[in-house]
Amino acid sequence: MSSTPDDDVQTYIRAHRTPFLADLAEWLRIPSVSAEPDRAPDLLRSAEWLAAALKETGFPVAEVWPTKGAPAVFAEWRSDDEDAPTVLVYGHHDVQPAALADGWDGDPFEPVERDGRLYARGAADDKGQVFLHTLGLRAHLAATGRTTPAVHLKFLVEGEEESGSPHFLELIRERADRLACDTAIVSDTGMWAEDTPTVCTGMRGLVDGEVVLHGPDQDIHSGSFGGAVPNPATEAARLVAALHDDDRRVAIPGFYDGVVELTERERRLLAELRFDEAAWLRTAKSHAALGERGHSTLERIWARPTAEVNGIHSGYGGPGGKTIVPSRAEVKFSFRLVAGQDTAAVQRLFTDWVAERLPDGVRHEIRFWGGGTRPCLTPLDHPALRSLVRAMGRAFGQEIRFTREGGSGPAADLQDVLGVPVLFLGISVPSDGWHSVNEKVELDLLFKGVETAAHLWTDLAEDWRAGPWPAAPRPAS
Amino acid sequence: MSSTPDDDVQTYIRAHRTPFLADLAEWLRIPSVSAEPDRAPDLLRSAEWLAAALKETGFPVAEVWPTKGAPAVFAEWRSDDEDAPTVLVYGHHDVQPAALADGWDGDPFEPVERDGRLYARGAADDKGQVFLHTLGLRAHLAATGRTTPAVHLKFLVEGEEESGSPHFLELIRERADRLACDTAIVSDTGMWAEDTPTVCTGMRGLVDGEVVLHGPDQDIHSGSFGGAVPNPATEAARLVAALHDDDRRVAIPGFYDGVVELTERERRLLAELRFDEAAWLRTAKSHAALGERGHSTLERIWARPTAEVNGIHSGYGGPGGKTIVPSRAEVKFSFRLVAGQDTAAVQRLFTDWVAERLPDGVRHEIRFWGGGTRPCLTPLDHPALRSLVRAMGRAFGQEIRFTREGGSGPAADLQDVLGVPVLFLGISVPSDGWHSVNEKVELDLLFKGVETAAHLWTDLAEDWRAGPWPAAPRPAS
Repeated sequence: MSSTPDDDVQTYIRAHRTPFLADLAEWLRIPSVSAEPDRAPDLLRSAEWLAAALKETGFPVAEVWPTKGAPAVFAEWRSDDEDAPTVLVYGHHDVQPAALADGWDGDPFEPVERDGRLYARGAADDKGQVFLHTLGLRAHLAATGRTTPAVHLKFLVEGEEESGSPHFLELIRERADRLACDTAIVSDTGMWAEDTPTVCTGMRGLVDGEVVLHGPDQDIHSGSFGGAVPNPATEAARLVAALHDDDRRVAIPGFYDGVVELTERERRLLAELRFDEAAWLRTAKSHAALGERGHSTLERIWARPTAEVNGIHSGYGGPGGKTIVPSRAEVKFSFRLVAGQDTAAVQRLFTDWVAERLPDGVRHEIRFWGGGTRPCLTPLDHPALRSLVRAMGRAFGQEIRFTREGGSGPAADLQDVLGVPVLFLGISVPSDGWHSVNEKVELDLLFKGVETAAHLWTDLAEDWRAGPWPAAPRPAS
Repeated sequence: MSSTPDDDVQTYIRAHRTPFLADLAEWLRIPSVSAEPDRAPDLLRSAEWLAAALKETGFPVAEVWPTKGAPAVFAEWRSDDEDAPTVLVYGHHDVQPAALADGWDGDPFEPVERDGRLYARGAADDKGQVFLHTLGLRAHLAATGRTTPAVHLKFLVEGEEESGSPHFLELIRERADRLACDTAIVSDTGMWAEDTPTVCTGMRGLVDGEVVLHGPDQDIHSGSFGGAVPNPATEAARLVAALHDDDRRVAIPGFYDGVVELTERERRLLAELRFDEAAWLRTAKSHAALGERGHSTLERIWARPTAEVNGIHSGYGGPGGKTIVPSRAEVKFSFRLVAGQDTAAVQRLFTDWVAERLPDGVRHEIRFWGGGTRPCLTPLDHPALRSLVRAMGRAFGQEIRFTREGGSGPAADLQDVLGVPVLFLGISVPSDGWHSVNEKVELDLLFKGVETAAHLWTDLAEDWRAGPWPAAPRPAS
C-alpha cells in the first residue's frame, strides 16, 4: 500500500522534529524585547538569525529590512509554477518583556521542554508560530517532490509588534511593490482550545482618541457657583452615559450603518463552540457579563462594534472631598469596529454627535489617535479560507470551526495597503500565557501547525486554479 | 434742638475713629494664618490680643479657649437688664495665607489706608468685621448712657475658620452651657454691593462624599473584553448623568421633599436686586449660566438644592490612549441643601438610589464626609431679623434688602448645637478680595457696620420685650 501525501508529511516531520526544536530554542534564547531600548542589538541579532534560517530553509532571498525602530525580515521564494498565487506570511520576531523576577519558573530566555510543552518567552507569541513554517515548507517540498513551493512565497516578520507596530504601516507602504501578493496569512493568533481547532476569520477595527471639555477657567467653589454654571465633569458623564442606550447599543445615530451582520450560519457556528462563560469571566477578571442586548458574549466581543471609555478624569481625586466645580474633564474613548464600518465615517459621526450634545459654556476638543485601524473579515465562503480550513483539517483530522478576534492589529494594514484578503493560521491556545509568565507552546499543536503549513501551499495552489479569488475590501476613500 | 440717638452714635464714632483704626491695624499686623503650622504662636498672640482688646472695651470676662488646633476667644458682658435676651456674636481671628510674592501691592500684614479703604489680609475676612463690634459697643453705651449693654452679650471668635473649622463643633458642644443664648449673630459675611446694603438670611447645607465603583479586578483589554463586561467608568458616568434630569433638576426621588420654596415676596425681592449676570459669570470664571429650569441664577445658588460632581477619576489619564476597561471609578460628590431638607435623609436617599442603579458585576462603596452640615434660614418675618434690619437701616439710611449665602458654614453648627436662630451682620462687599490679593475693607462701610452694631443691641432688646421669638429649627433625630 503506497503512502498518502499526508503520511509523507507526517513521516518527514517526525524525522526532523529534534533538530527543528533545537533551532527554535536557539532563536528563543535571543531576548528580542522590542519594548526595551537597550535590547536593540538583540533585535538585530534575532532578525539576522531568522534571515539565515530562512536561507538555510531554501529561500533564495532573505533580507533584514531596517526601519526607524527594530528591523524586519523579508524573504521570498518563487514557485516554478508561474501561474501560482503569491502568498505573504506575516509574523513578528520581537517578544514581550520577561524576567525571572516576574514569577517565571525558570529563565524565560532558556527554553525548557517538559510534559509535551516548550516553555520560553516567544514560544507561542510569536517565534514558535513563525518558525513552524520552516519545517512545514521542507515537509511540503519533501512530500510533493517539488524543488520550489507550490505558491510564490513571501515572508514578512516584523520586529515591533509587541510595541504597537509603530513603523509597520510606513514599512509596508514603502515596500508595497515587493510585498505584492494575492493573500496574506497572519501567523500570530490562536485557536479556541486544545481539542477544538479553529480558524480566525477577522479582527475588529479601532477608532480611539480623547475628548477634553473646558468649563470654568479654573476650579471654582461649588457652594458659590455650583448648580448655576455648567460642570464639565457632569457634561463628560452625560456624554459617556449617552454613548449607550438602555439596550447597551451604541446610541450615536448612524453608528451601525453598513455593519455586516452575522449570518444565521455564523451565529449557529458560534453558538456551537463550547463556551464556559464562568471561566471566560474569570479570564476577564470580571464579575458579570453585560453588553448589547440580543447578542451572546462571543458575538459581542467578536462580531459587534462597541464604544468603550478607557478613562475619565476631572476635578478633585485626592483623599476626602473638595467642594469645587472642576475646570475641565478628559475622556479617553475607543470604538471597536466590524466589517462594513468605516473609520473615517465613525470619527465624523462621533465628532458631530459630541458637538451637538454640549451646552453653552462648555468648550471642547476632540483628538483621534491617527486615522484608526480598519476591521477585516474573510467571508466563510472565501476560496482561500476554504483552502486553509482544508489544510488544517488534514493536519488535525477534525472539523475546523471558526472564531474571530475582538482586538485590532496590523492584519488590517496588510489588507488595506496590499489590497488582499487576510487569513489567520494560529495554533496557540488561551493557556499559552501570552504577555504573561511561563509562556509555552503545546508541542502537539505546534507540529499540527507544521503539518498544516506543509499542506497549505498545495491546497491553495490547487484551489487557485479553480478560479480567481474575490477582491479584498478596499478602504473607503 | 436736642440730638437723636442716631446723631449721638455718629458723633461718638467720628470722635473715636482714629484710635479704632490704629488698634485694628495693630491686630492686622499679627499674621494669624491658621493653614500654616509654624504660625501657631501668631494664632495665640492674635487670640490674646483680641481678649485684651475686649477687656479694654469693658467685657468683664474675656478668655482664650484652647482647642486641639488654634485657640478661640470667648467674652461675656451681661446686661443689667436681667430680662434682656442673650446674643452670641460669632467671628474668627485667623486669616488666609498671604505673601507679597502672590501679587500684593504691599506687605499684606502691614495695613495701608488709601482712598477710603484699609488694605491688609484680614481687613474684611474677618478681623475688621469682628473688631467693628468694639467701637459699636462703646458707641451703644455712650449714646444710651448705659453702663452695660442692652442685651446679655457673648463673643465667640474662633481661630480655624479658614482651615475648615475642624474643632469648632467639638468646642461648642463642650462649651454649650457657657455659649447658651437666644440668637447668634454671624459677623463674617458680606452685602450685595457698595450701594445696596443687605442682610443674609441663610446658608445652604452640605452633604458630601465619594462613590467608588469596582468592575474587573484589574484593568483589562478593551479589545478582548470591552462591550461584554461592565465598565465602571461607564457606570460612574451613567450614575452622574442620571443625577439630573433634562430640566437640570436633581433626579433622585424624594430629594426635594420638604424643600422650603421661596415665597412670592422672596422671589420678587431677589428679582429686584440689581444683578449683572455677565459680571457674575466673570467672577465665576464661567462662560454660560446653566441650572435648574424655572429658577434664576440667584435662586439657583441661594435658595435651591443642588447636586454637584467635584471629581471623577477612572482608568487611563496619561498622554495618548490605552485600550483598557478600567478596574475602578471614583466619583466625588456634594449636595447643597436648603431649609426643609435633612442631611441624614439625603444621605439615605442617595445611598439607596446608587445601589439600585448599578448593574450586576459592579460592586460599590459610598462614603460620606461626616454627617453633613444642615442648612439654616431665618424667615423674613422673624422678630430678631426685623431688629437687625431696623438697626442696619438706621445706619445706612436706605432700604435693607435680603440675600442668602450659597455656601455652607459653622453658622449651622451654632443653630443646631445651641438651638437658636442665626442672623448675619456683614458689611463686606464682593470687591473686598477675600482669599485673594490686596484684600481690603471699605472704611465707609466698616463704620456703617460700627453704627449698625451700636443700634443693634438697643433694637433687639426693645423687640424682645414685644414677645418671645419663635424657636429655631432643630436637627431631625
